[in-house]
Amino acid sequence: MQLHDFKTLADSYTVFFFDAFGVLKNYKGLIDGVVDTFAYLRDRQKPVYILTNDASRSPQQLAESYWRLGLTDITPDMIISSGMLAREYLQLKVDHGTVAYLGTESSAHYIESADLHTISIGELTLENISEVNALVLLDDEGFDWNTDINKAVNLLRRRNIPVIVANTDVTYPVSKNRLAIAIGSIADMLESIVGKQFIRFGKPDAQLFMFAYERVQEVLPGISKRNILMVGDTLRSDIAGGNKFGLDTALVLTGNTAAHEAELRIQATGIIPTYVCESIQL
Amino acid sequence: MQLHDFKTLADSYTVFFFDAFGVLKNYKGLIDGVVDTFAYLRDRQKPVYILTNDASRSPQQLAESYWRLGLTDITPDMIISSGMLAREYLQLKVDHGTVAYLGTESSAHYIESADLHTISIGELTLENISEVNALVLLDDEGFDWNTDINKAVNLLRRRNIPVIVANTDVTYPVSKNRLAIAIGSIADMLESIVGKQFIRFGKPDAQLFMFAYERVQEVLPGISKRNILMVGDTLRSDIAGGNKFGLDTALVLTGNTAAHEAELRIQATGIIPTYVCESIQL
Amino acid sequence: MQLHDFKTLADSYTVFFFDAFGVLKNYKGLIDGVVDTFAYLRDRQKPVYILTNDASRSPQQLAESYWRLGLTDITPDMIISSGMLAREYLQLKVDHGTVAYLGTESSAHYIESADLHTISIGELTLENISEVNALVLLDDEGFDWNTDINKAVNLLRRRNIPVIVANTDVTYPVSKNRLAIAIGSIADMLESIVGKQFIRFGKPDAQLFMFAYERVQEVLPGISKRNILMVGDTLRSDIAGGNKFGLDTALVLTGNTAAHEAELRIQATGIIPTYVCESIQL
Amino acid sequence: MQLHDFKTLADSYTVFFFDAFGVLKNYKGLIDGVVDTFAYLRDRQKPVYILTNDASRSPQQLAESYWRLGLTDITPDMIISSGMLAREYLQLKVDHGTVAYLGTESSAHYIESADLHTISIGELTLENISEVNALVLLDDEGFDWNTDINKAVNLLRRRNIPVIVANTDVTYPVSKNRLAIAIGSIADMLESIVGKQFIRFGKPDAQLFMFAYERVQEVLPGISKRNILMVGDTLRSDIAGGNKFGLDTALVLTGNTAAHEAELRIQATGIIPTYVCESIQL
Repeated sequence: MQLHDFKTLADSYTVFFFDAFGVLKNYKGLIDGVVDTFAYLRDRQKPVYILTNDASRSPQQLAESYWRLGLTDITPDMIISSGMLAREYLQLKVDHGTVAYLGTESSAHYIESADLHTISIGELTLENISEVNALVLLDDEGFDWNTDINKAVNLLRRRNIPVIVANTDVTYPVSKNRLAIAIGSIADMLESIVGKQFIRFGKPDAQLFMFAYERVQEVLPGISKRNILMVGDTLRSDIAGGNKFGLDTALVLTGNTAAHEAELRIQATGIIPTYVCESIQL
Repeated sequence: MQLHDFKTLADSYTVFFFDAFGVLKNYKGLIDGVVDTFAYLRDRQKPVYILTNDASRSPQQLAESYWRLGLTDITPDMIISSGMLAREYLQLKVDHGTVAYLGTESSAHYIESADLHTISIGELTLENISEVNALVLLDDEGFDWNTDINKAVNLLRRRNIPVIVANTDVTYPVSKNRLAIAIGSIADMLESIVGKQFIRFGKPDAQLFMFAYERVQEVLPGISKRNILMVGDTLRSDIAGGNKFGLDTALVLTGNTAAHEAELRIQATGIIPTYVCESIQL
Repeated sequence: MQLHDFKTLADSYTVFFFDAFGVLKNYKGLIDGVVDTFAYLRDRQKPVYILTNDASRSPQQLAESYWRLGLTDITPDMIISSGMLAREYLQLKVDHGTVAYLGTESSAHYIESADLHTISIGELTLENISEVNALVLLDDEGFDWNTDINKAVNLLRRRNIPVIVANTDVTYPVSKNRLAIAIGSIADMLESIVGKQFIRFGKPDAQLFMFAYERVQEVLPGISKRNILMVGDTLRSDIAGGNKFGLDTALVLTGNTAAHEAELRIQATGIIPTYVCESIQL
Repeated sequence: MQLHDFKTLADSYTVFFFDAFGVLKNYKGLIDGVVDTFAYLRDRQKPVYILTNDASRSPQQLAESYWRLGLTDITPDMIISSGMLAREYLQLKVDHGTVAYLGTESSAHYIESADLHTISIGELTLENISEVNALVLLDDEGFDWNTDINKAVNLLRRRNIPVIVANTDVTYPVSKNRLAIAIGSIADMLESIVGKQFIRFGKPDAQLFMFAYERVQEVLPGISKRNILMVGDTLRSDIAGGNKFGLDTALVLTGNTAAHEAELRIQATGIIPTYVCESIQL
């Protein structure tokens, strides 16, 4: 497996889509070289977007989290999150009533900003259940798993309503050796139990890429997909999604895919990045 | 859809395998007619076995639970549970070390009687994790879902050990309109997250039927499968399992399959019971 | 279940996306009322697009097929097919070498127009296999199933190349009571055998809707998704895809979903159309 | 990964269950050492059984195929095939009418010996379709894939009958580098298209092991599962099935699992053989 130098790619492409976790940051903080790479791209006026499966916070809050880590180049409009897609869906498709949610209050506040009334699953009662017109799965925290996942099952047996999964990730790393279960796994379990089809937002689905591509075209009208590079650490979301959308893709080895297993996984999955780079360090 | 009279079947077959929940009892207690049917079969010296996906209690405790409901005909040796298969597996295949479990202490005591040392997932530490040689999923109660399911994921990332699912049911009814998530659903989520193949015991798998069939043969050597009737309320476990094992099967409409949907479900699933009866009432 | 009058919808929305089979035509020819509805929408200058999972022919050939049936309003630019997405993918992502295909020569000619060299699986030899840089599944006809599906398996074991599924449908009707297996089912079997992840184009995936939406915006810049109605006969592709893309959706009962089962299927799948109409007849 | 010497195992266990393909023979003929190992076990009066996912021929024909290869120790009663389970099912559960099949005439003759009338899918007509009371999938040869798999789909849409899969293997090797698609893959495609649950016989399912275990007990009454070793080359069928049945298991590296990948696959699947041996050579 040939490793490519990220600097060559930084010079060759016009626009960059980055995954967040495992590319820009990890459980310890920013990944080495990220500040310099962002400065390099900014100096050359190359637009950068962050495409992230995250519905726990608003773009503003996500941008601030990068500032606190020392990456001050990031503005909220550079962030495209699966939560934004969920919010757009709810705005377009749920025009009255209440949206129930599994997640933190903070994640729900962002949904609420779409003029929708939200209620946590924990607050559901026999009285208010008939007003619930959608269920949105936002985050794995902020609720009692045993009680509230069971309440969600029984809500979906009584009310035939759309269920929106605002983050399809199945796990996320919390330390070098430990994973935590993400809301995407809870969504899979719920969907299998109730037998209904949920609506999922997030990579590898095309909609997140489309959202970012539309934003690029406001800045650079008529830009070809050939000039955009998608950079990620995960074959099944970042690389599969970028490839299918027609973009060139670069797999970096600073996150989910370790150097020693990259070649084997590319072979086993048939998900083939255009390039493999150690990291985005120049 | 033609409904059959259970009395005719009680007279036609020699041995009866009954599912428990939805056939003999429900969330309210015994189902109408069960005491009389058991007396009728006992008077005619027709052996009866209860085949149940249950790993929460020992056969002795399960038998006692029927006595408390008023069905005193049941002895522990009539009960064949998925927990017994899990216990046999652990006895044969895990000859030293510790078995970690998700479930109540009561469910673990039964496993412990197989001369195995057990430890709840909640008690796992960095010190004792290396002694764990199997994980057994017993019951949906007795542990903190968020903390302990996450601990199970990380246990299985560190230790390549067999995982035994002692009850494959995905839900169980807790009242007329409410379901609870069973340990089988948690097993499915865990298996999907860690990507390993778990070992499942319970209907429709042949092993539970085989266990019961061996017990029949001790009483009635050489009996043909043609003389055994499997009676259940669930197509995917009771009827599919009985059919595949070569038994005639009777679907009763007192549990998971309601009268108005029975025909549609038989058509949709292709799981075809030999008979459909309203209940086991004579 | 309340039935809506299609005329009211024709008056309420500005742009219409129609599925083809089961909405505009069936195995016998055009569905009643289609010519009048298209005339009505044309007279009111309401743009119409046909979104179809079809990779067997070019938009020009598809348009001509409607002319022959008597629907002369259709121009090639109104047709958005999954084959167009597959063609765009190949143009963007496969810049040299040969594309192998399963399908008819006619389907391959359309791919070839993207300046790519194509070769049918049947023509693959040990000599030319190393030049193959992608496999595209186009149509269920035009090849020997036994020989050529087996050749595809062995091609994918030797060469780690992208596999593009240009039509995800699993079956299609050939008469009132008979279905034929579509290339989507063969794709599913192949993917399961080789264990690699294929790239699928077609409803319910967002990309086909995005392609159509971009075309609408050339004609009606800034149009909101709220003014577009997706009309289809299949919950899992047309309605699920339209809903997720943020469009209002109308299920018609002239194809895959019969009147007597519509309500049950909406309940069972949780895929909820905004409207249900008998047909698109005014 | 520690490699075990098969001779030690041959001395330690009392009864041996062998998979056929990849353990005893491959596409070239007998695997080195097999004749000597069988002689060694025969001299020590250790019973040997061959557990094979094969429904193409009767035990007699299978035994003869070993004689032709030079392994004359094998008698028909040593062979336990998934075809025997399918035959037993049909005998017990289909007591009249016709059994339709996909496979060769030779595979059907064996089913016919159960006093059942068989008809190949190719011979199905509108006249005789109503007499068909089961469909059995026997072999990937002996029929026209395109025509007859499509006929099977339409048969199963008209008639709600049990479908028996007599060999669950998805592929089989035909030369060093080439695989062929087995009837198990065609079964998976059919099942997914018609949405009904098929009845599958073959490893890793417990029923094949139980069939062999019953035969052992006729020779060695009361033998413990602890004294039986299952030997196979495939983790997902041989080893998973043997483990679950409570047997010790030995993975050999002469078939589906190559030496360089054995450790990785055991880790990835969580299917853990008791031993790993290069081959069954002494």
